Amino acid sequence: MNLTQKILSRHVVRGELVAGKEIAIRIDQTLTQDATGTMASLQFEALGCDAVKTERSVSYVDHNTLQMGFRNADDHRYLQSVANKYGIVFSPPGTGICHQLHLENFARPGRTLVGSDSHTPTAGGVGSLAIGAGGLSVALAMAGEPYMLAMPKVVNVHLTGKLQGWAAAKDVILHLLGLLTVKGGVGKVMEYTGPGVATLSVPERATITNMGAELGATTSLFPSDERTREFFAAMGREDEWEALVADEGAEYDEVIEIDLSTLEPLAACPHMPDRVVPVRELAGLKVDQVAIGSCTNSSYADLKMVSMLLKDKLVSTGTDLLIAPGSKQVLSMLVAEGALTPLILAGARLLECACGPCIGMGGSPNSAGVSARTFNRNFEGRSGTQDGQVYLVSPQTAVMLALRGEFTDPASWGTPPALPQLPDEVPSIRHLFIFPAENAKDLSISRGPNIVPLEQFTKLPEQLEIAVQLVLEDDITTDHIMPAGPQITALRSNVPAISEYVFSRTDSGFVSRMKEAGQGVIVAGENYGQGSSREHAALAPRHLGVKAVLAKSFARIHRANLVNFGILPLMFESKEDHAEIQLGDVLSIPCSQIVPGGSCSVLKNGSEQIKVMNDLTEKELDIIQSGGLLNYVRQSIER
Amino acid sequence: MNLTQKILSRHVVRGELVAGKEIAIRIDQTLTQDATGTMASLQFEALGCDAVKTERSVSYVDHNTLQMGFRNADDHRYLQSVANKYGIVFSPPGTGICHQLHLENFARPGRTLVGSDSHTPTAGGVGSLAIGAGGLSVALAMAGEPYMLAMPKVVNVHLTGKLQGWAAAKDVILHLLGLLTVKGGVGKVMEYTGPGVATLSVPERATITNMGAELGATTSLFPSDERTREFFAAMGREDEWEALVADEGAEYDEVIEIDLSTLEPLAACPHMPDRVVPVRELAGLKVDQVAIGSCTNSSYADLKMVSMLLKDKLVSTGTDLLIAPGSKQVLSMLVAEGALTPLILAGARLLECACGPCIGMGGSPNSAGVSARTFNRNFEGRSGTQDGQVYLVSPQTAVMLALRGEFTDPASWGTPPALPQLPDEVPSIRHLFIFPAENAKDLSISRGPNIVPLEQFTKLPEQLEIAVQLVLEDDITTDHIMPAGPQITALRSNVPAISEYVFSRTDSGFVSRMKEAGQGVIVAGENYGQGSSREHAALAPRHLGVKAVLAKSFARIHRANLVNFGILPLMFESKEDHAEIQLGDVLSIPCSQIVPGGSCSVLKNGSEQIKVMNDLTEKELDIIQSGGLLNYVRQSIER
Repeated sequence: MNLTQKILSRHVVRGELVAGKEIAIRIDQTLTQDATGTMASLQFEALGCDAVKTERSVSYVDHNTLQMGFRNADDHRYLQSVANKYGIVFSPPGTGICHQLHLENFARPGRTLVGSDSHTPTAGGVGSLAIGAGGLSVALAMAGEPYMLAMPKVVNVHLTGKLQGWAAAKDVILHLLGLLTVKGGVGKVMEYTGPGVATLSVPERATITNMGAELGATTSLFPSDERTREFFAAMGREDEWEALVADEGAEYDEVIEIDLSTLEPLAACPHMPDRVVPVRELAGLKVDQVAIGSCTNSSYADLKMVSMLLKDKLVSTGTDLLIAPGSKQVLSMLVAEGALTPLILAGARLLECACGPCIGMGGSPNSAGVSARTFNRNFEGRSGTQDGQVYLVSPQTAVMLALRGEFTDPASWGTPPALPQLPDEVPSIRHLFIFPAENAKDLSISRGPNIVPLEQFTKLPEQLEIAVQLVLEDDITTDHIMPAGPQITALRSNVPAISEYVFSRTDSGFVSRMKEAGQGVIVAGENYGQGSSREHAALAPRHLGVKAVLAKSFARIHRANLVNFGILPLMFESKEDHAEIQLGDVLSIPCSQIVPGGSCSVLKNGSEQIKVMNDLTEKELDIIQSGGLLNYVRQSIER
Repeated sequence: MNLTQKILSRHVVRGELVAGKEIAIRIDQTLTQDATGTMASLQFEALGCDAVKTERSVSYVDHNTLQMGFRNADDHRYLQSVANKYGIVFSPPGTGICHQLHLENFARPGRTLVGSDSHTPTAGGVGSLAIGAGGLSVALAMAGEPYMLAMPKVVNVHLTGKLQGWAAAKDVILHLLGLLTVKGGVGKVMEYTGPGVATLSVPERATITNMGAELGATTSLFPSDERTREFFAAMGREDEWEALVADEGAEYDEVIEIDLSTLEPLAACPHMPDRVVPVRELAGLKVDQVAIGSCTNSSYADLKMVSMLLKDKLVSTGTDLLIAPGSKQVLSMLVAEGALTPLILAGARLLECACGPCIGMGGSPNSAGVSARTFNRNFEGRSGTQDGQVYLVSPQTAVMLALRGEFTDPASWGTPPALPQLPDEVPSIRHLFIFPAENAKDLSISRGPNIVPLEQFTKLPEQLEIAVQLVLEDDITTDHIMPAGPQITALRSNVPAISEYVFSRTDSGFVSRMKEAGQGVIVAGENYGQGSSREHAALAPRHLGVKAVLAKSFARIHRANLVNFGILPLMFESKEDHAEIQLGDVLSIPCSQIVPGGSCSVLKNGSEQIKVMNDLTEKELDIIQSGGLLNYVRQSIER
């Protein structure tokens, strides 16, 4: 067996491990963050359990830590009280970024983890099978329900050689993104094997598994080996380590070979993580801002490297350098190892240990500004500056750009220092987590005025006569559908309020059209709903009355979110038909005639027939017809 | 002479040092911050000077460092380019808070300083005569124009004894605020004398002078003595120190005696800094949030004390503790002295070196949350949470509340550690300031799309034939004229854009009427322009073409702003005439016949005569006829 099969076979409760078939797996751990966690908590509350039924659930606050106005602070108190009552570990704002903290403190080889954040696969860096999911899926996992997915194909990414010169772990995943595109990993687990694996430390592996999310992969997975054991020992939890590797001669659905020694510093150009070019090709491009941090590149090793490169130097006066360490453990180590002062004295701005600029939470670049970031996404407008030009690079590359004030050829950078190792003594920050109360059943929940109970959606009718309220092209991201940024994400526990911003940066008339019509259908191209896992990209459109999305294809997590909130995900049988549909066209959808995995005819404007298909399971169709998963689960509880 | 008189007598260029009489003084130094600095810079640009004429001008970025969206980042680049071109030192975002940085790096005994921030008097802690002023006054000071003020009364605050137990410098100024109220210092300089002065270090003195602003005082002043010399030596600029004390037996207008040894920990209750009670009287009140920092209490001594109190302890799980060091120098010292890690490991959140939560820039408390802050203002809503309950306390008190999770009686706190002294080696951050270019005359200014140069207003014509575009009642505030709120204040460097909101909440048709007519007159009742001092309430109407306001009476500061931007403030000789004027009436105003303090007749609709008067000085009338103060000064610079 390959590693993926090994872990899944330990956890499967229903279904066969055959690619494409639906399986249900037992979930050992869950994680939530604040932007998705309030909704997951509202949903968990609605399920009526006394406590979580997982081995370990953790509620992190890392997204909206700026706390502009009462809403964020209220959300954080709400999350803390839910955690305390239901047996969830709470990580207060400022403690660090969920994936970095989870890797350091809770992730375990061979364990399954679902998290309401698309970068949950970070934990694959220590051999945990970690999947990003909608908040509702996470709420169900907390309630002890198995997690359902189509058995992914397993890709063997076979690593040989060793990174040379200025090439970094970030360049491994950027290379893969250039090779496979943001759709290349859909329905797949990227499993890393080969002699090159042992040359990569856990933080380097975690950079790669983290950004596997940008491939659209279900998850990414490294074996748990001697390097992993060293990491667990440094974190003071060697007892939680176990060796876990694929069997000799295990079979894979695909194989990709990468010789690490051939890689060079790369950059993903605006506005997509797969627009990858060598850094040298960008030489001469002025850089207005450099930002280092995020769940991709904020480990001690990353920032110690940054510190070594900045020591006794000064950032270019034309460039703003922002640094946000990944956790208080990282920050403490930087202080203990004398690595913080060089950052400060080089002119870097030290931000709180949180997601920060990666999600547009401050640190927006200037108008049309070029920003080089060690983050994982460079979608248009995500930085908070609509015309910001964001490039994704490694920490090493980021520092050199900050010092030079522009992209230059790495050949001119001299010899890089060796990658730092973890110090002998790693300070523990475990006491900063708030472990839940014992016998907390009667504890009350703290609920601010912006935390609004969920509405109950209606069942799908037998027939929909529904107008097209939006026609979209390929690669629409959940950032297009439900933009982020502080003003909007503050409304995530208030569905009526956040719904006012659906597609606000794509088509400002959409919301008023939906309100006037009361319901509508969205028509889209390939890969609809790629990117962040945010379920509000389904929940808020559903609140506005979106009953179906007709697309060429769907991104995996968003498709699941559509099902969960009772929106029909239909696909064109003939992709050319996309061009035939215009805003305002009325579609007649025979909902009661839809069968799982089948096709049917939709009538356009009462005359023209369009063939559509679906890849829904019987259960998924049931869920949609019930008006979403909460209705469905409630029904099954009532039965 | 007292110290105030000594410094003023060295700088006076016009007028007599007699309380209440107008004097003009030479200004040695200026400071601006980003929130007011963009407009001050636009105004300085409009004056047409090649470079600042001060000994030292510094442009700090400390207010909007979160950089949400492009506007902040664009503003910061604009300020940097203006500084570089015109000979101003630039302090990039994240370097620290203007007053803390100015104290550490630029403030000098005996020098005059005006700053476009009300807490500019902080520099009085080292014997600098430092006054907060509007952006236009600071722009004029940068251009070498003298600063005009009414000669203040000088109050001798005579200090005896020494602070005991948990009482801190903050409690000295809180005690004074309780005694004198927020109006108690208006028209006065608070000059500190007596044997108690020598018991206070410079950072302690600066806490007191900083918050003298809350008394409404013109400024506050400590002598420059041996303690001051020690501070300058530690900062590596002993050569900039000079001894400066009041003459023996100097006379004062008033005397206040404070025996420091009698003070106890105090707190200012919501929502005014003068609602002062002993901390012990608040015992039992739960505290949701504690925030340490701001220009009042963010020095090394403050934060080292905080670190000593937090060492090996843990913040209450019900309380969120935020800490923002005052400068990168403070932060570096904390790291060097091993004082940062205890903060991190106690659970404190480390924010960027900036104003932060003090101005509601993040860190807003939860709904109705109790927040204890080491800041200087607790006005309703200022925290960003309208119903937030903000208490102002010392850093020592703040820590004890964070550890206990509630107000407790200081008698239960044990013995406090001794107040920390500056370490022997203080790291310099002087290289982080960007000193201006030499020969920078031809450098270009970086102007984002939201930064629009000031237009040059036309001179007042000899005769105005002008329609009434708005008729208002009594007590119209500057909030009616030019509303605030984040959406609108973000447009303060874009007069055409912000002008779209003039009277938007009072009469939504006003702007379009003004645009159609091209010019107009506003008719108002008593006390027109009361409230906030914002100059955009004159500048934006002037942009729309308002040439005169005819009112029953004017609020003092707004009247001055009208003059500064070339709008005629006329008053009804007979207040009943207000009722005779209607929207659309055309007034014929014989501008050339107006004499200072005189009256004249205005013709309504070509027939009816209305007698109007003015209380303008000859100079004020000149300014209005020139089209505003900027034109007036430009003319005198050209002469």
